[in-house]
Amino acid sequence: MELPSKLLESAVNEFARLPGVGRKTALRYVLHLLRSEHATATNLAQSVLSMREHIKFCSACYNISDAEICGICANTVRNKKMICVVQDVRDVMAIENTGLYKGVYHVLGGLISPIEGIGPSDLFIDALMKRATDGIDEIILALSATTEGDTTSFYLARKLQPLKIEISTLARGVPVGDELEYTDEITLGRSLQNRVPYHKD
Amino acid sequence: MELPSKLLESAVNEFARLPGVGRKTALRYVLHLLRSEHATATNLAQSVLSMREHIKFCSACYNISDAEICGICANTVRNKKMICVVQDVRDVMAIENTGLYKGVYHVLGGLISPIEGIGPSDLFIDALMKRATDGIDEIILALSATTEGDTTSFYLARKLQPLKIEISTLARGVPVGDELEYTDEITLGRSLQNRVPYHKD
Repeated sequence: MELPSKLLESAVNEFARLPGVGRKTALRYVLHLLRSEHATATNLAQSVLSMREHIKFCSACYNISDAEICGICANTVRNKKMICVVQDVRDVMAIENTGLYKGVYHVLGGLISPIEGIGPSDLFIDALMKRATDGIDEIILALSATTEGDTTSFYLARKLQPLKIEISTLARGVPVGDELEYTDEITLGRSLQNRVPYHKD
Repeated sequence: MELPSKLLESAVNEFARLPGVGRKTALRYVLHLLRSEHATATNLAQSVLSMREHIKFCSACYNISDAEICGICANTVRNKKMICVVQDVRDVMAIENTGLYKGVYHVLGGLISPIEGIGPSDLFIDALMKRATDGIDEIILALSATTEGDTTSFYLARKLQPLKIEISTLARGVPVGDELEYTDEITLGRSLQNRVPYHKD
């Protein structure tokens, strides 16, 4: 696909670096920016630049924040003795959306993945260990149910073990609303092994 | 979905304006830019700004170009007496990729669409009419096989008729490599009506 303009070419190349965006999609985005009002393109560019320049990470939990300490860590009502360890800010948002968690978070910034060359030192694990020694009651490992997630949970659990803190992880099981026959056998098997007493509530 | 930072929020909003991009995808793009090297984000922003600032449209055919006249119009080997009318630059690229067209193009910049409020005056039709009076042999209407494409072709054909130029359109029929039983009945019907003598080639 040879483009008729070098400027177009370079814009398409930059957009094609975004996750899941190929050259065709990138071209679609770029042509849209070219056809729409001047402000649409400049606003996009400016927001990317100012975000990259000024955005901060909370110095306590490494969540994205506009201030030194994020809104969740600064909230005096939240239980600071309970830390939920997550991969990134999207997981913080997902858990916040449930409205069921009143503790604070620790954002790792990724998962241990030898394939992608991400080791423990690339994540905010040292900071978590430091927080963990500071009178914490419970640490919830809320990582993805993937190989990388399980590896990271295993690594963290072993590192945290000597501290005698309660360590928990998310329940795995049949998703609410799912039919049994369509649940994969590993999930079904695990939910059978980890079955819980029946509650009427 | 409440974001923890206003800067993040504004970047997500700008990306969500791109075609086919919702807030979840926009957040994925923005987090990628935030995590990757500083240059990835600044290069993207700079390329958008310089593209929007400096890109030109060919003064003859309205194709995207870095110069006053695009590479195709400036090419002395191309047949200037044959004009292929297309919707946008992507169609120019698609036809160029076939390697079978040696004439020049005219980019309309869209299709007539009453639903989207696009009328003939929003497209480069006046410029096409001006070019058509300038000793042209043939005009090929290479527009999409949609309602908007057919409407635009019909409009152009009627406007061009008095000029006594040969007007043609792309053949519609069963796509090469497709099986008959999966071809929709309108295409199959048309390809039966417009059947051509059998050539051994």
